[in-house]
Amino acid sequence: MRKVFQEELQKVHEDLVEIAALVAEALERSVEAFTSADVELAQEVIAADARIDFLQTALDEKAIEILALQGPVASDLRVLVGSLRMSASLERMGDLARHIAQLARLRYPEKAVPAGLEKTFARMAELDATIISEVKGLLEDHDLTRTSKIQAANAELDELHAGVFRSIADPSWTGSPALAVDAALASRYFERFADHGVSVSRKVSYLVTGEWDGDNTSN
Amino acid sequence: MRKVFQEELQKVHEDLVEIAALVAEALERSVEAFTSADVELAQEVIAADARIDFLQTALDEKAIEILALQGPVASDLRVLVGSLRMSASLERMGDLARHIAQLARLRYPEKAVPAGLEKTFARMAELDATIISEVKGLLEDHDLTRTSKIQAANAELDELHAGVFRSIADPSWTGSPALAVDAALASRYFERFADHGVSVSRKVSYLVTGEWDGDNTSN
Repeated sequence: MRKVFQEELQKVHEDLVEIAALVAEALERSVEAFTSADVELAQEVIAADARIDFLQTALDEKAIEILALQGPVASDLRVLVGSLRMSASLERMGDLARHIAQLARLRYPEKAVPAGLEKTFARMAELDATIISEVKGLLEDHDLTRTSKIQAANAELDELHAGVFRSIADPSWTGSPALAVDAALASRYFERFADHGVSVSRKVSYLVTGEWDGDNTSN
Repeated sequence: MRKVFQEELQKVHEDLVEIAALVAEALERSVEAFTSADVELAQEVIAADARIDFLQTALDEKAIEILALQGPVASDLRVLVGSLRMSASLERMGDLARHIAQLARLRYPEKAVPAGLEKTFARMAELDATIISEVKGLLEDHDLTRTSKIQAANAELDELHAGVFRSIADPSWTGSPALAVDAALASRYFERFADHGVSVSRKVSYLVTGEWDGDNTSN
């Protein structure tokens, strides 16, 4: 019984890592679609999000089944409940990658990235890629030194996000209102992606150390 | 033991209703602050959100404790896991009300509602108020006729949200890019608030009927 249980927990864990890998791929492709106005790639990212949603639902059902059949306590219980939460955050990160692809599709054949902000968005995309890569690594190896990298990337993203809003509000902004909206939404998607990544990393830290340092997903 | 358990479940349920009531209040006050550029009221809504966050954390801890100590199965287990998810949605609705208040504070002494869209935003606010009121009612009395009202309000909100984006993109739009961004963000907050309300109502339906009709929070 105990062995089956550990195998089931391991399966939930592997599913989380698999979802994180799919989110990393979705982000990479959505950024490519967003940067190069590639509407076909955008369409692929949008369609592929259903797979992430499906895996999340399956993982949640599996976790609930384990709760029901095994009645785990203490750390095993926390791992399972933590998995439910982490899967929700990862699924949401997939949605945000999809939103970035949707912006690309909406503006096609124009680019959704406003002129003058290309470098900013390129850096935001890079930071989000670091975050999901470190989140996936953290889920795999529980190396907590990764959390400080995730938090540093998130802090830089917050700064860049605030900078985009300042650019839009500045009298020197020459883009159309619609482009300003695209820039604001894209910036928000990149920033929220990072927030959810931080949230997952905090849950892993908590499960490893038993110490909770707060959460900031709620911004 | 069984009696204690039922009392504990009942307490979780009451906490959910209390959080819903606080979210309804936060929405009402954030809309007032947003509509009338009342920066003090905006500040109050922003500060009051910490209470919702606290109650959600407390509810989650309580639910996990019950899972650990009572090892519930079948419908009790689903109710507890459902409560964890519903509390997360309600907490997020509180955040969105806070975001609306933050827009009001950011634009003060100007109004964040762009000229020409006052009626649209007034209607969006009204629909969100209906949604959170029906969600709270649904949590209290499990009257599933409420879910169709919630879904109808959400459908109208989606239409209005799309309309705001059309207005901003229209050549006749005369507001500044910064105002366009405010309108887009506010519209998105109102629309997401509704999505989370639908999500909670679907979870209640599922717990009452055992049938799942899908979820659309992820938009």
